[in-house]
Amino acid sequence: MDQRISFVTLAVTDLEASRRFYLDGLGWTEDLYVEGDVCMIQVGERLVFSLWQREHFEAEVGVVAAGPGVAPLTLAHNVATPAEVDAVLALARRAGAETVGEPQEREWGGYTGYFADPDGFRWEVATNPGEIGQKVLP
Amino acid sequence: MDQRISFVTLAVTDLEASRRFYLDGLGWTEDLYVEGDVCMIQVGERLVFSLWQREHFEAEVGVVAAGPGVAPLTLAHNVATPAEVDAVLALARRAGAETVGEPQEREWGGYTGYFADPDGFRWEVATNPGEIGQKVLP
Repeated sequence: MDQRISFVTLAVTDLEASRRFYLDGLGWTEDLYVEGDVCMIQVGERLVFSLWQREHFEAEVGVVAAGPGVAPLTLAHNVATPAEVDAVLALARRAGAETVGEPQEREWGGYTGYFADPDGFRWEVATNPGEIGQKVLP
Repeated sequence: MDQRISFVTLAVTDLEASRRFYLDGLGWTEDLYVEGDVCMIQVGERLVFSLWQREHFEAEVGVVAAGPGVAPLTLAHNVATPAEVDAVLALARRAGAETVGEPQEREWGGYTGYFADPDGFRWEVATNPGEIGQKVLP
């Protein structure tokens, strides 16, 4: 099995709110849209980000764990400089992200901060000066 | 903000069990390993999959939602043919995946099945004959 992730799919409670955030707010472009069902956005050369209306996700995958707390994942958007981290977090705030953390120097040498999308999914905006961090930059 | 995901990070309850599954079971190679903390695996040209010990994830990101049900995400591994879907699901079963669903023809034209990793995170193994599905193939 090749080491490949092809799609990252999130179960969202309100597809139109998610589209407003990612498309109108962050300025992304969708590649596929099925009203009331799914929005797909290419986020890498062979990688697609998919927002799937939760009822449809649950019908195929299973009932989603509810309750207080965050989902057990983060997605990261890495950039080259701390100034770009600040700029992306500012954009997320303008896009209506309810939770936007203050970026911090991390003990491993990076500088990162988190914002939450309309469902509370956490995105980390990061500089990572380590070798593995350099591998992900465009 | 560029349309890019750089890292996909999952909060895992037992890092060594996750490493046994992905490294020994699926045959993947890690790029970074910090004992008791994190394992990072490159899964695309500019994409890293990170398994982060849950206590450390929670200290930085927040307490994870508990309770019955699945996490509100899936990761997909796309391949070119239905036979490869079957082969990857069989590999996941040999690797010890507790839940391995029967692959099915989907109404949108694909053929997919799911397996669960040691924390129950769902991976979809898929053929997708659509235009967007072709974009993710190597």
